[in-house]
Amino acid sequence: MIQNTLATVFIALATLSFSNLSAQTSPTPSDSALVRSIYNEVLTHGEAYSNLRTLTKTIGHRLSGSPEADRAMIWGADLLRLYGADTVFVMPVVVPSWTRGDVASAYVTMSNGARQDLHITALGGSIGTPGDSTITAGIVVVKHLSDLDTMDVSITEGKIVLFNRAMNPVLINTGSAYGGANDQRGQGAIAASKVGARGALVRSLTHSLDTLPHTGAMHYSDDVKRIPAAAISTVDARKLAFLFEEDPALSVTFKMNSRALPDVEQGNVIGEWTGSELPNEIITLGGHLDSWDIGEGAHDDGAGIVHTIEVLRALKAVGYTPRRTIRFVLFINEENGNRGGIKYAEIAAQELSSGDKVYVAAMESDAGGFSPRGFSMDASDEKVLQVKEWASLFEPYNIHRFKRGWAGVDIGPLKKLDRRPLLIGLVPDGQRYFDFHHSTSDVFENVHKRELELGAATMASMIMLIDKYITAP
Amino acid sequence: MIQNTLATVFIALATLSFSNLSAQTSPTPSDSALVRSIYNEVLTHGEAYSNLRTLTKTIGHRLSGSPEADRAMIWGADLLRLYGADTVFVMPVVVPSWTRGDVASAYVTMSNGARQDLHITALGGSIGTPGDSTITAGIVVVKHLSDLDTMDVSITEGKIVLFNRAMNPVLINTGSAYGGANDQRGQGAIAASKVGARGALVRSLTHSLDTLPHTGAMHYSDDVKRIPAAAISTVDARKLAFLFEEDPALSVTFKMNSRALPDVEQGNVIGEWTGSELPNEIITLGGHLDSWDIGEGAHDDGAGIVHTIEVLRALKAVGYTPRRTIRFVLFINEENGNRGGIKYAEIAAQELSSGDKVYVAAMESDAGGFSPRGFSMDASDEKVLQVKEWASLFEPYNIHRFKRGWAGVDIGPLKKLDRRPLLIGLVPDGQRYFDFHHSTSDVFENVHKRELELGAATMASMIMLIDKYITAP
Repeated sequence: MIQNTLATVFIALATLSFSNLSAQTSPTPSDSALVRSIYNEVLTHGEAYSNLRTLTKTIGHRLSGSPEADRAMIWGADLLRLYGADTVFVMPVVVPSWTRGDVASAYVTMSNGARQDLHITALGGSIGTPGDSTITAGIVVVKHLSDLDTMDVSITEGKIVLFNRAMNPVLINTGSAYGGANDQRGQGAIAASKVGARGALVRSLTHSLDTLPHTGAMHYSDDVKRIPAAAISTVDARKLAFLFEEDPALSVTFKMNSRALPDVEQGNVIGEWTGSELPNEIITLGGHLDSWDIGEGAHDDGAGIVHTIEVLRALKAVGYTPRRTIRFVLFINEENGNRGGIKYAEIAAQELSSGDKVYVAAMESDAGGFSPRGFSMDASDEKVLQVKEWASLFEPYNIHRFKRGWAGVDIGPLKKLDRRPLLIGLVPDGQRYFDFHHSTSDVFENVHKRELELGAATMASMIMLIDKYITAP
Repeated sequence: MIQNTLATVFIALATLSFSNLSAQTSPTPSDSALVRSIYNEVLTHGEAYSNLRTLTKTIGHRLSGSPEADRAMIWGADLLRLYGADTVFVMPVVVPSWTRGDVASAYVTMSNGARQDLHITALGGSIGTPGDSTITAGIVVVKHLSDLDTMDVSITEGKIVLFNRAMNPVLINTGSAYGGANDQRGQGAIAASKVGARGALVRSLTHSLDTLPHTGAMHYSDDVKRIPAAAISTVDARKLAFLFEEDPALSVTFKMNSRALPDVEQGNVIGEWTGSELPNEIITLGGHLDSWDIGEGAHDDGAGIVHTIEVLRALKAVGYTPRRTIRFVLFINEENGNRGGIKYAEIAAQELSSGDKVYVAAMESDAGGFSPRGFSMDASDEKVLQVKEWASLFEPYNIHRFKRGWAGVDIGPLKKLDRRPLLIGLVPDGQRYFDFHHSTSDVFENVHKRELELGAATMASMIMLIDKYITAP
């Protein structure tokens, strides 16, 4: 009897592992074949790579508020129409506008008069140096914002603060290492100004030791004087800190003419593919169309944009008919405000409360066009478990990561909806991402065709499964 | 009673999942801490990247039989000594020697007399064109060796055969796509000669569409006349096939002065770290020191060499004491003969039969210095299951692949030992490997520091677990 009971339990457990309790949530052998056909389509007829070439090489970078962002919106809308979206529209979003200007120069002068140039670029949102003239000052080198709190103001007053904390190399997830260092970039100018400093230089957020400054968003506080802040390359940050140890009387001179401009109306570009059974249940899929204004925004987030558009193309190509409505969203303004993501969630909340729509799931690709490893989910335990059940379908494609975690900036505000959608982010291999991120090297040539395509196929397959099987919130 | 039984079974199953039946094979929490310390050591003080720079930039490529291979052997032995191997010695191996010569040129001439250059390089082992003079002939384009069998000899006689089958893009594993196309390179000259052709051009084995020819081993058969064979870049192979469709009367002219040289004695460089408990039980770890003679052999297999050496350095640095003897082997002649691997296994067989040694396991890194994904095992079911039990220890490092499969060319001959060791190969992400493989672009600059380091740490951790827990054959 025990033997029989054991056998029964083993069979029950085995069944549990390979299928589901509810037929509605359970992939079938035909899903496996469909996933294979999606990968085959993308790997043989994929257009993500050539679309990325067009975006990066004919439009280039596309900061919110820029004419290039306008052009990218038109390009994206045209492509969504070309690939058969039922409706394509722009959701208007008022975005900030800022210009880097045409000057960002810096050098260090030693006590003996010797000079060495430093590679810098304005952090996004920074004011220029006063009167667009040079600042020359002694420096203070710190690793943490809080290091400034313990310094006598006589040390910091009138100085330029170099924030020189490296990203932690032992963290396997480079995004975590980035997250652990970007207080310097985001809050450094505020912290430096509070102690009387005239400017801030922030070590670029990358593991790579090179001479490229990496820009990115910085913030001011209304109760603290605004001071100019620049990214400095990792090689130059190390060099400057070393020189300062040798010669504490050195000075740094820098000049930038970056400045804020009036807000501009642009928008999220949205292509809708209407659901055949549940058209009011919305699955959102997107990346962000804006980028920083150096490089070409190829990985960040040109890759996410062409991933998103390729999902539409590929699912149409394999003859898929969605049950729910799939929205392909090219978000605006992720880099310096996330106003596109916020607006999208505001409208979603209105539609949800009026009973017009239910937001079932939202997927984002904003971690580069590298080999996909899996997904990161911000969702209820039930939803996470449901997606994990599909892992075996992805095993032939070397997609293994199905874990709880951050899903994406653009879709993040959807988390606050009363009926909360599954939020899910594509997780590519992250080791190279910050080599390019927000720098002049984030260009098309640094994106790999097959890696980009595998990401698109992985997303398309997951969107198909979500559409078929995920339970609505 | 059923309830209790169920509970018991569930507990038993849960226990099964997270531990082992035998204490001897069961990692402990301290193993988890040790793995963490290995990754930390390699990611903060790793020397694999700087060692690879030295190997590639001061020695460069190192074909078997070449003076560069001699220099690499000395470099490797010195480094193994520096990092504390108890014994370092060379196991003599007689290797083939071959030179590419200094000419490999080709062009196509259209019926109207127009010429276009083609990018070619000799396949490894090929003879030159007769008298080191040009061959000019019409061409035949095929995709499969067997296509030649069905052609009338009047079509093929005196021609140059272009083998133009691309690697299959839908295979996720690029190694499988390579394996599915390399009959053209290995056997193309034999097949072409059998039907009276005067030369063979083989489409380069890469998914990348570019103008780089990729060399690699080709073979002759004693019963068939030897004809010269060259790799042609993917772009040129496509172009030539297209031109031939338009103009079947075109001709190709090519010239090479490659040739075989007398065999040379070189050897496998071996560093031994003597086991503290079971010194006669051998764990082998290696890559191959030789490379092709274009590029720098950075991924193939400089990465495997510096991985191997870094495992010694890192395990010493974290204070590990091996139970078994670990052999760090820099194999010679993987690319064109595998005589190093064959010799190593011959001696192993002798030592095994005399009762001197037991070969417990052998690990190889010969798939590039990219982000590690896991391991491929060629072993008994029992051994494969045993290694899979350790998967959770690697989960924090995003290492997920623990599957049966090909382990490596150099360690392959050990499979024939009477008491068969666990063969295990590092599996890095493979999407970029064949972009560089056997071409002038396989250089240091195309290896990523953190990706290389993660591979070394992954190998060191696995070697530690094998040393502690694997059961001897």
